[in-house]
Amino acid sequence: MSRLLLGHFPRSLLHAPLRRTTSIRTYASATPQFDWQDPLLSKTLLTSEEIAIGETAERYCQERLLPRVLQAYRDENYDPLILREMGELGLLGATIEGYGCAGVSTVAGGLITRAVERVDSGYRSGMSVQSSLVMGGIHEFGPEELKERLLPGMARGEILGAFGLTEPNHGSDPGSMETVARAHPSKKGVYLLSGTKTWITNSPIADVLLVWAKLETTGKIRGFVVERKDCPTGTLETPAIKNKNGLRASITGMIQMEDCPVREENMFPDVEGLKGPFACLNSARYGIALGTMGALEDCISRARNYALERKQFKGNPLAKYQLVQKKLADAITDSIYGTLAAIQVGRLKDEGKATPEMISLIKRQNCDRALHNARVLQEIFGGNAVSDEYGIGRHVANLYVTQTYEGQSDIHSLILGRAITGVQAFA
Amino acid sequence: MSRLLLGHFPRSLLHAPLRRTTSIRTYASATPQFDWQDPLLSKTLLTSEEIAIGETAERYCQERLLPRVLQAYRDENYDPLILREMGELGLLGATIEGYGCAGVSTVAGGLITRAVERVDSGYRSGMSVQSSLVMGGIHEFGPEELKERLLPGMARGEILGAFGLTEPNHGSDPGSMETVARAHPSKKGVYLLSGTKTWITNSPIADVLLVWAKLETTGKIRGFVVERKDCPTGTLETPAIKNKNGLRASITGMIQMEDCPVREENMFPDVEGLKGPFACLNSARYGIALGTMGALEDCISRARNYALERKQFKGNPLAKYQLVQKKLADAITDSIYGTLAAIQVGRLKDEGKATPEMISLIKRQNCDRALHNARVLQEIFGGNAVSDEYGIGRHVANLYVTQTYEGQSDIHSLILGRAITGVQAFA
Amino acid sequence: MSRLLLGHFPRSLLHAPLRRTTSIRTYASATPQFDWQDPLLSKTLLTSEEIAIGETAERYCQERLLPRVLQAYRDENYDPLILREMGELGLLGATIEGYGCAGVSTVAGGLITRAVERVDSGYRSGMSVQSSLVMGGIHEFGPEELKERLLPGMARGEILGAFGLTEPNHGSDPGSMETVARAHPSKKGVYLLSGTKTWITNSPIADVLLVWAKLETTGKIRGFVVERKDCPTGTLETPAIKNKNGLRASITGMIQMEDCPVREENMFPDVEGLKGPFACLNSARYGIALGTMGALEDCISRARNYALERKQFKGNPLAKYQLVQKKLADAITDSIYGTLAAIQVGRLKDEGKATPEMISLIKRQNCDRALHNARVLQEIFGGNAVSDEYGIGRHVANLYVTQTYEGQSDIHSLILGRAITGVQAFA
Amino acid sequence: MSRLLLGHFPRSLLHAPLRRTTSIRTYASATPQFDWQDPLLSKTLLTSEEIAIGETAERYCQERLLPRVLQAYRDENYDPLILREMGELGLLGATIEGYGCAGVSTVAGGLITRAVERVDSGYRSGMSVQSSLVMGGIHEFGPEELKERLLPGMARGEILGAFGLTEPNHGSDPGSMETVARAHPSKKGVYLLSGTKTWITNSPIADVLLVWAKLETTGKIRGFVVERKDCPTGTLETPAIKNKNGLRASITGMIQMEDCPVREENMFPDVEGLKGPFACLNSARYGIALGTMGALEDCISRARNYALERKQFKGNPLAKYQLVQKKLADAITDSIYGTLAAIQVGRLKDEGKATPEMISLIKRQNCDRALHNARVLQEIFGGNAVSDEYGIGRHVANLYVTQTYEGQSDIHSLILGRAITGVQAFA
Repeated sequence: MSRLLLGHFPRSLLHAPLRRTTSIRTYASATPQFDWQDPLLSKTLLTSEEIAIGETAERYCQERLLPRVLQAYRDENYDPLILREMGELGLLGATIEGYGCAGVSTVAGGLITRAVERVDSGYRSGMSVQSSLVMGGIHEFGPEELKERLLPGMARGEILGAFGLTEPNHGSDPGSMETVARAHPSKKGVYLLSGTKTWITNSPIADVLLVWAKLETTGKIRGFVVERKDCPTGTLETPAIKNKNGLRASITGMIQMEDCPVREENMFPDVEGLKGPFACLNSARYGIALGTMGALEDCISRARNYALERKQFKGNPLAKYQLVQKKLADAITDSIYGTLAAIQVGRLKDEGKATPEMISLIKRQNCDRALHNARVLQEIFGGNAVSDEYGIGRHVANLYVTQTYEGQSDIHSLILGRAITGVQAFA
Repeated sequence: MSRLLLGHFPRSLLHAPLRRTTSIRTYASATPQFDWQDPLLSKTLLTSEEIAIGETAERYCQERLLPRVLQAYRDENYDPLILREMGELGLLGATIEGYGCAGVSTVAGGLITRAVERVDSGYRSGMSVQSSLVMGGIHEFGPEELKERLLPGMARGEILGAFGLTEPNHGSDPGSMETVARAHPSKKGVYLLSGTKTWITNSPIADVLLVWAKLETTGKIRGFVVERKDCPTGTLETPAIKNKNGLRASITGMIQMEDCPVREENMFPDVEGLKGPFACLNSARYGIALGTMGALEDCISRARNYALERKQFKGNPLAKYQLVQKKLADAITDSIYGTLAAIQVGRLKDEGKATPEMISLIKRQNCDRALHNARVLQEIFGGNAVSDEYGIGRHVANLYVTQTYEGQSDIHSLILGRAITGVQAFA
Repeated sequence: MSRLLLGHFPRSLLHAPLRRTTSIRTYASATPQFDWQDPLLSKTLLTSEEIAIGETAERYCQERLLPRVLQAYRDENYDPLILREMGELGLLGATIEGYGCAGVSTVAGGLITRAVERVDSGYRSGMSVQSSLVMGGIHEFGPEELKERLLPGMARGEILGAFGLTEPNHGSDPGSMETVARAHPSKKGVYLLSGTKTWITNSPIADVLLVWAKLETTGKIRGFVVERKDCPTGTLETPAIKNKNGLRASITGMIQMEDCPVREENMFPDVEGLKGPFACLNSARYGIALGTMGALEDCISRARNYALERKQFKGNPLAKYQLVQKKLADAITDSIYGTLAAIQVGRLKDEGKATPEMISLIKRQNCDRALHNARVLQEIFGGNAVSDEYGIGRHVANLYVTQTYEGQSDIHSLILGRAITGVQAFA
Repeated sequence: MSRLLLGHFPRSLLHAPLRRTTSIRTYASATPQFDWQDPLLSKTLLTSEEIAIGETAERYCQERLLPRVLQAYRDENYDPLILREMGELGLLGATIEGYGCAGVSTVAGGLITRAVERVDSGYRSGMSVQSSLVMGGIHEFGPEELKERLLPGMARGEILGAFGLTEPNHGSDPGSMETVARAHPSKKGVYLLSGTKTWITNSPIADVLLVWAKLETTGKIRGFVVERKDCPTGTLETPAIKNKNGLRASITGMIQMEDCPVREENMFPDVEGLKGPFACLNSARYGIALGTMGALEDCISRARNYALERKQFKGNPLAKYQLVQKKLADAITDSIYGTLAAIQVGRLKDEGKATPEMISLIKRQNCDRALHNARVLQEIFGGNAVSDEYGIGRHVANLYVTQTYEGQSDIHSLILGRAITGVQAFA
């Protein structure tokens, strides 16, 4: 695995010693102590390598991302340099073997998303698209030539990717997509893509766009790697979508294609139908499941600090109030339960035993519980939560989005319902 | 009552015929029909005058406020002209008798806040401060001279008010306030106010500020009407608080006073302690209780429209899905229950039978349920709710704030708990 | 209206002066006081006649029913004498005009069910079947001869009724019923009923059974008043269903008919299809909506008493704990909101403005909230709630049943969803 | 470990081949399949020995306990023979090393409680008292003589135990207990115990009672093993408590002691204060945390079966309805999350890394979620759930009790709150 990931931290990325708000306790003493930051010691389930990777990622995120996020969120601005930095540390496409990638375990990949999402779900989204959706898709389904040509640059964050599946009229039902790929009327080996994709993270800054379209001849969905540099003016537009309620520290846009040419070699050769995009989503959803636990943990930490510092009524800290303590107790419970479940699924994934329904289960539950608890913890701040400097309002707004993307929760409920009963209830 | 309120709509305020998204059905037919917009016919509890007032307010809000709110919220900008327009229609201080005010019923006053909050809770907040907190306070506790001098101009929206109670370190516990009023060392009949108030709606644009401070000599809280025009430079600062997560279409700020002079005649003569500010809050809270039902109704209307228009899976509208229908059914239930309860308390208030605990009860419940249902309805929009153009995200963000101000919900729970059991549990 | 209902209380029914655990406060004083038992003064919405009827009913229930219920529930035993006593007081079929009935308002009828259900939902169920389902059905749809012959005796509780709609395989979907009525092969003017009804309150003790069956010739559902005395041996069996989890103080059974003869005059002449049974259910559901508020109020009263008396940790009463106070505050809120909504629908019903969806709305919400809050209040009792002497466990078990009968909550959600969206989602 | 536990199933206990309603799938195939009964493959975390133990326990419970439970629950009757049978299989005190006990892992012990609670929480309670509270207590704190004399017979189920901690006035606060032990005025080496314990599972049938009392001389709590055979008439009474709302298949009673003599050798020598009883409770609570997952799994299985078999509206099974599928999806999620967390804590316990707060966390959450989901699943049965033959009502009633005993949920919330914040909020 990547030397970088194992704590060899590039000097350029660190101008100050580590200052984590949430210090991690060690367990050397004889009498075990309860650690509210890891209440059931999930760390005991990790390898030392995974722990080291997690620490590297946490360090980078706390030192380099945290200071930027408030302004970025206010301005609805995403700095593409962030992907470069992540690439420098080996955080991109980290679960891929070879092609300049670190080849770490699924759980280690999840620890990276958790570290990033502890700062901001938008930053994690930008990374997930690059790592899981685009690099993962190319690695799993792309021809060898594409892998060798694109993956190393993507791993370094020099080539940026976007994933074009969702269309304006087909959010939860990608099978009805309207984007079409037809053979070029004159140039052999070239397809022309036409159609519109929306809510595409990174699309305005992407160099390569993994676009899913129906092949005109077969009506079957196929994957195409569109390279922006090869698109004549007017065939590819990727306007940004502004004025978002959440994920404002990530950049989102559309992909508008009008006879946009793609070489046949850029089409995924062996995968047809929804199997392809769903496989990509599966990996990304795993990252979300563990990632959102990071956002929730940050909410817990912020709420706890506030409750200890804020005094009301005879100088008691809010932390002394039963109604406040219950909110904290509920939150750490959901957080550690979600973490343990995600670790288990990560292990099963690496052993080839994970099914998509398992991912649906943890993605749905962890997003739902992260959002729910973040909202409840926000109540501890009272009116002060309205100030964006407390950070919790940002997490609340972000987590709503994580609940809706890559499978809205109700859709995952029905996926699970079908798996439990054998009966489908979508329509 | 005000001629204006009874439908005599100033031409200048209307450039186009009424286009309400939510048309109101009439009940002439023999077979009663279910009206999802008023499921238990709360309208039957209103007088024709109240209905007319409500319609005037709704018309103004839909025609004049709705078109402005999206941009105002984006820019975190509040146009003080709005209070002028509201004044022109007789909507300000409407429950006050005399002094140029309309003298309508408490319920009619609530219908006005509901109409405004149907557009935006921030707009309603700006109006509540002017009407209930400042005009209401002056009317109830102020000396006659102040009433005659200030109330008519405030009713017209020409003099703007702010209400200074909350301090940075004493949100839920105003009894511990630190702002102090001491006698001027040399000028007789003048007090000098020093201290800081925060989260003060309208403070940056206010002409008069109703400030609560402890009289140095007695240690008791007293009310002072600070007039900005009389404050020497450096004695009164009202900086805006920016980058809010919610209520961005209202303006919020601090009040910083350093030996700010106030004439003795501007001190409320007969009210001491928390009784004064709590009486003001009581009126404002009533307006919130009915107001938030307007925001919730708008969420219902928007979600229903979206569910009927958005098609997924075999062309079915989302409205056909059981999980969606349940969200709508839950929301209209909470909405109409909250409306009926608020009407009942309004009647009791006018009959002198209302107690502060009743206001706590409906303020808490209606804010909690409006927020909860708004969040659940937001799920119907899936990822699209992230776009601010759907409006529901704005309501969700606003309603969180309404839940926390003028008594955070947990505080109201403990007020009720004390009233039920006779035992207090604050500390 | 009935002289009896207006407080002329038969001596035989009262052996002791009134001892209500929950005394009702009066409002003579100048400063209004908060009354946790009627937090928003719903009483101000009642006529003095309605108040008097409610008090008569409460007095009977507290004095005569309360002492019996614990043993009855343990033994799963229902004393038919109860209906006689209720009849003596004019409580049966009370909203019917004439035929020996009291002719009171819908709200007054609801106050009676609330008084009975304050003691036990099973007792209220027994009364609802007699009053709303059977007497109401005969009164609305029966031929004059039947009304005159049966209603006076039913009003006195001398003739007992049962309502046969639900079948073993068709709980929420009565339109698929299998019970059939065919013309007698030889006797003119006689129908033979065959089929099985289940979960029929009062069936084992009923003298008359209002049975809904499909007329063989038309396939349409019709109503038949089966009189037990006219049924030859072997044509009608009404075995009791024992070992119930709830409503154990009411008696439940099946109706098994095998060529059970009914005279044509006992068939409802002018109503076909589900309109008939649904009209009956509508009245009964109204009684449930207000009735369950009585059960909830009793839970509140019991939990409050327990919380005040039970001391833990340094001698503090449980009532001092924030987590306990919040449970009580939530419960009184749902209770008074449900009460106000039910009063409003009662008024609309008497004015001919109520629709079935309104009944669905309040039946669903009030049952759901009564059950939810009863469960939460039960937590205050800790392990002690396991003892049946605290009564709250009985309410919890009963209220589950009220949530499921006469329209399970999810079914009412879909009825409302259809009314809101115009789209049906049952299948 | 015990030979018996490893599948060597005594013939006498099995009269028929295994008929589990819920067959366990194996995972030999290449493509992993989703298993709704173990959605995240918790089985992969178990050793083959643990799996074998779990299967032995499940087989016994399904074959021998399940057929008895309905009648036992109806009659509120507990057959002490059950503990003999469990003893014969090595299920009692299974985690204890030596003294005739099996010496299995904590997780294996939890799998046994889960198997028993899949049938009934009352049966599991009876076993938990014997195994964790009494045998565990004697093993951890008792003098060697007592261990050798009592544990083997208890392991065989020939000597039955009860655990006397809770007193009528001190449920959640055992530190205030009133039971006292004073030195015998004349007989040296003998203590006289006086006081009352209540809600004591197994007390009426117990041969030995582990009673906690305050030593008169020190005021400190000490543990005494009271042997019924040594108590003169009138010094020890253990009346049964009848008419319970839940756990009716277990036997519960009081312990009334009046100068009840206990030899000094029967006092735990080295443990003082609440440390002793809390250590015992800690083990029992662990068993509850995994045990309640068995009850929940049985609810899921029963609800799923019902939903597949029950048809409504055009012949669709209930399983086809979205509202039903969501209930099932939610339930399996909470079930597997709770299972994974309990396994993790079991591992930590065996490694000496578990803290009492961890047990509080999983006990609280698993009881709460088991109860909540059981109630929601019960809704699928509609009115039919009132019949005790569907079993789910019994689980619902039982699970309420598990939520309240061995630490009511709110108490555990405050234990966690204290651990998180360092501030205690009990009073």
